[in-house]
Amino acid sequence: MSRDPVTIVTYEWLPEFPRGFVRDIRARWAAEEAGVAYAVETLPVMPKSVAHRQIQPFEQVPILRDGDLTLFESGAIVLHLAEGTPLLPEARRAEITQWLIAALNSVEGATGRWALMQMAERHPAIFGPPSPPEVVEHARQGMVARLDALERVMQGRDWIAGDFSAADILLADVLRVPAAMEALAGHPALTAYVARATARPAFQRALADHMAHWQAADARMAAQA
Amino acid sequence: MSRDPVTIVTYEWLPEFPRGFVRDIRARWAAEEAGVAYAVETLPVMPKSVAHRQIQPFEQVPILRDGDLTLFESGAIVLHLAEGTPLLPEARRAEITQWLIAALNSVEGATGRWALMQMAERHPAIFGPPSPPEVVEHARQGMVARLDALERVMQGRDWIAGDFSAADILLADVLRVPAAMEALAGHPALTAYVARATARPAFQRALADHMAHWQAADARMAAQA
Repeated sequence: MSRDPVTIVTYEWLPEFPRGFVRDIRARWAAEEAGVAYAVETLPVMPKSVAHRQIQPFEQVPILRDGDLTLFESGAIVLHLAEGTPLLPEARRAEITQWLIAALNSVEGATGRWALMQMAERHPAIFGPPSPPEVVEHARQGMVARLDALERVMQGRDWIAGDFSAADILLADVLRVPAAMEALAGHPALTAYVARATARPAFQRALADHMAHWQAADARMAAQA
Repeated sequence: MSRDPVTIVTYEWLPEFPRGFVRDIRARWAAEEAGVAYAVETLPVMPKSVAHRQIQPFEQVPILRDGDLTLFESGAIVLHLAEGTPLLPEARRAEITQWLIAALNSVEGATGRWALMQMAERHPAIFGPPSPPEVVEHARQGMVARLDALERVMQGRDWIAGDFSAADILLADVLRVPAAMEALAGHPALTAYVARATARPAFQRALADHMAHWQAADARMAAQA
């Protein structure tokens, strides 16, 4: 480790269903890939605290602390951890930033819209009233158009911008959601890409530590009960 | 001008309703702020061309050409044009990137979802079937929660991250949509922020050139008819 440890802030506890997909996993993954040691601090998911709002105006996670710097937005955290590492070579900065932002806007804009409608079917108290079938179908078609475009790009590529980079952390993690909801089945290059990305030891460590965090929280709650 | 001119690629022609809000305006604005001269090239909006897909897999605009580099995603284009200028001072790179990504994900994710529902009411052939009132209301509440958070941040600030920066180009342009749809009325700090940003001479030049581009296309079409 060539730099001081950082701190990743996530929730203290969460119910089962979002576990494995909370965006602190992106920060953990980037830290593991970059060889940066990190500690974990927590905030309650409900009720939100004033301390939370002061460091993350939208009251979300993750938040990164690196010395005097406090940073939110998983994309910005990943780019920051990638600075000066092979995850963000200077010669490819513009291209990597392009794909990282594509993941968070052009791709997640479409996959997230459809996924939110699916989640509203299952958890309307949390995600709001369900949408009618024709609206869900329109969202599905919009998502498939974006996935078709990405499928063509990924054919013949292992990673989205040269070697594995900061952009792959965001793009693969965004695609994990439709993959888990069985919406990537018609996209073999994307399916293989997500498998390749999530097979990386750094992702495996990040996922294991992320899941262990919730299990430890469950155990603490059980001990208090 | 201390660098070679760049090329911004936008559509050849568009109908009236999206004019003033096509994202090439972000690239034009950044070029004007950075003092970078640019030429404009065009692609047809419909049917999409193979040439378009080759440089923008999602078949959108804008696209930037800068020497050998071809770049898409307005956020990445703005960051690229901002490199080495006061729009992206190195000491604030992480913070500016954070707010630029917040604009494109946390803010536009919420405002765009609501705006899309509004546009589906008006242009269902283009934007898909309308959503029922309770779904629109849920989206509106989600948008208002994000705007409330931003309103608290902007109170007492002129710009989102120190001096005017690349982040303000994205954040102000994202907020122009709810502003134009009269959804910012309850947010005086955000309303003042959008007015302050769009009063800048660089934005005014970008908007005028953007609108003149469509008017010239209309005139060409009229001459051919």
